[in-house]
Amino acid sequence: MQREIEFFYFIGSTYSYLSVARAEARAAQDGVALIWRPFSVRTLMREQNNIPFATKPVKMKYMWRDLERRAARFGVPFSGIPPYPVDPDETANHVATLAAREGWCREFTQSAYRTWFLQKLDPGTPESLRNILNSLGRDADDCLARAAEDETKQEYLASTERARQLGIFGSPSFVVGQEIFWGDDRLDDALAWCTAQ
Amino acid sequence: MQREIEFFYFIGSTYSYLSVARAEARAAQDGVALIWRPFSVRTLMREQNNIPFATKPVKMKYMWRDLERRAARFGVPFSGIPPYPVDPDETANHVATLAAREGWCREFTQSAYRTWFLQKLDPGTPESLRNILNSLGRDADDCLARAAEDETKQEYLASTERARQLGIFGSPSFVVGQEIFWGDDRLDDALAWCTAQ
Repeated sequence: MQREIEFFYFIGSTYSYLSVARAEARAAQDGVALIWRPFSVRTLMREQNNIPFATKPVKMKYMWRDLERRAARFGVPFSGIPPYPVDPDETANHVATLAAREGWCREFTQSAYRTWFLQKLDPGTPESLRNILNSLGRDADDCLARAAEDETKQEYLASTERARQLGIFGSPSFVVGQEIFWGDDRLDDALAWCTAQ
Repeated sequence: MQREIEFFYFIGSTYSYLSVARAEARAAQDGVALIWRPFSVRTLMREQNNIPFATKPVKMKYMWRDLERRAARFGVPFSGIPPYPVDPDETANHVATLAAREGWCREFTQSAYRTWFLQKLDPGTPESLRNILNSLGRDADDCLARAAEDETKQEYLASTERARQLGIFGSPSFVVGQEIFWGDDRLDDALAWCTAQ
């Protein structure tokens, strides 16, 4: 059986940009499959009173600088600070949930992050989502309608509840069994843990 | 001229345990000297409303687990969760400031962290500090008296002000010129930056 890591992420998390861009290829090098799990880290962070940047300008300034440096280190494009926060209604994350169900989550999420970080647009607006879906050859009207259905929202809530039960508090988080690894900078730790099992 | 990294840290920071144990030897491998800079991260975090763990039990639980795993990865001893928080009057940090001035900061800080993490004692109590200073062959009464002098406290405040000006918000932070790298997990990034200059 192929080894796998669950990749819990939220479109709207800044550092998740790096993982969205690089984690699947990096995991494949170690023979590990990545299971994409969109979830509402925003809900969990609000519950836990965990506000890393919005009220902390010194830390926020550092975060963007660190993200820029880390992007350069990994060869991930970075062209300045994008809008933040984004996707207030979590629509992009609902579409990602639909995409995860249907097997096109990686392509969708990578395109959403490029829209956010490189085009500097909120990926959660109807216009952005239509452009992303069209570029992937998807029927945008159909996808947006199904992303808004109760079934999709319930799946998103269930993924969030699973993250809550695991003790997740941030995005990205890599999960190996019950073991959680928080942050793009813990990808190697998660892979080492996974391949040692 | 030998390359150097300034190592801003606070005795009381949990992840700094890893850096205190490993950073100087790791830096030496790359020919880089480590300059030990005790500072009051507690003051800066209060100013910035940055409370990472005290009010966040889910994140705190993860932090200890992550620290245990990272310690194992680096071969740093870990024997369970130590008391937290410690050094309420920052006395151990005042002694570290004195030690930095006189060239015995590494030995003192490593011993203080062993007292905290391995003996599970607050390193800032008079008893702990006497034991640490005695074990280093220092005159405990003399050191404690000089650590309490205005000159030492002013140096500690100046180090904290320097950290504030640099945009530091957490411990450990590694500084190369004006570039800051936060976290034990950014040591390699700081070394790469330093040796590329």
